[in-house]
Amino acid sequence: VSDSPIAVLSRAECLERLRQQPVGRIGITIGALPVILPVNFTLVDGAITFRTVPGTKLSAATTNAVVAFEVDACNSSGESGWSVLVQGVASEITEPSEVNAALDTLEQPWGVRGDADRIVRIDMQMISGRAFGAESAA
Amino acid sequence: VSDSPIAVLSRAECLERLRQQPVGRIGITIGALPVILPVNFTLVDGAITFRTVPGTKLSAATTNAVVAFEVDACNSSGESGWSVLVQGVASEITEPSEVNAALDTLEQPWGVRGDADRIVRIDMQMISGRAFGAESAA
Repeated sequence: VSDSPIAVLSRAECLERLRQQPVGRIGITIGALPVILPVNFTLVDGAITFRTVPGTKLSAATTNAVVAFEVDACNSSGESGWSVLVQGVASEITEPSEVNAALDTLEQPWGVRGDADRIVRIDMQMISGRAFGAESAA
Repeated sequence: VSDSPIAVLSRAECLERLRQQPVGRIGITIGALPVILPVNFTLVDGAITFRTVPGTKLSAATTNAVVAFEVDACNSSGESGWSVLVQGVASEITEPSEVNAALDTLEQPWGVRGDADRIVRIDMQMISGRAFGAESAA
């Protein structure tokens, strides 16, 4: 293991790991400061898709903005694991049939108050991933 | 539980949760794009402290820059959990005795190549946290 400390994940491996995780973390800018928030999400038509509450800071910060999105997993000691990073433009889905389909599919968002009936998608302009420790040899 | 969907964590609760986690995620800017990377860290003198390899993008992006740092945990379905967000200025520790003490204390960083002998600290200018689902009633 020690002689293969890092493995670069292929795009297919990155997508597979994105599909396996219910929660990722979005990196946005609010008030000119960087913010990272956990978000539960689903891949829909190849885009990271989640629900937000209209009028919230998260909702505003994901309107036509370049964002980061990350998923990871590691063992309890933090000695092996993997991470996948997506960068892309977040935007609102407004076409009524797509909105309704997404509302039927997507879970309620993690820890929000109010009606989360706004659908945000992140187009994956860039995706990269790496595994390390025992994970890198898998 | 359903009538207490979110609980705001006190500063003391946020610090306690930061102490319990070996790995967090740092939000930085590289090439004008937002990036989120997992980092294993330790609290030293009230600051998030970790090792980087000199000359890397992570090292450059944490030199006197405002960054976000997040830790979280959730159950496997993503229905309950908590998150803590720190915002502050990252800077290099250069005082030799502090560097040596930190090198003795801090683990090797997660998945890097090279000698991680540069020590970065994030002063916690802002810290906030929340819990939701079953966690919010704990």
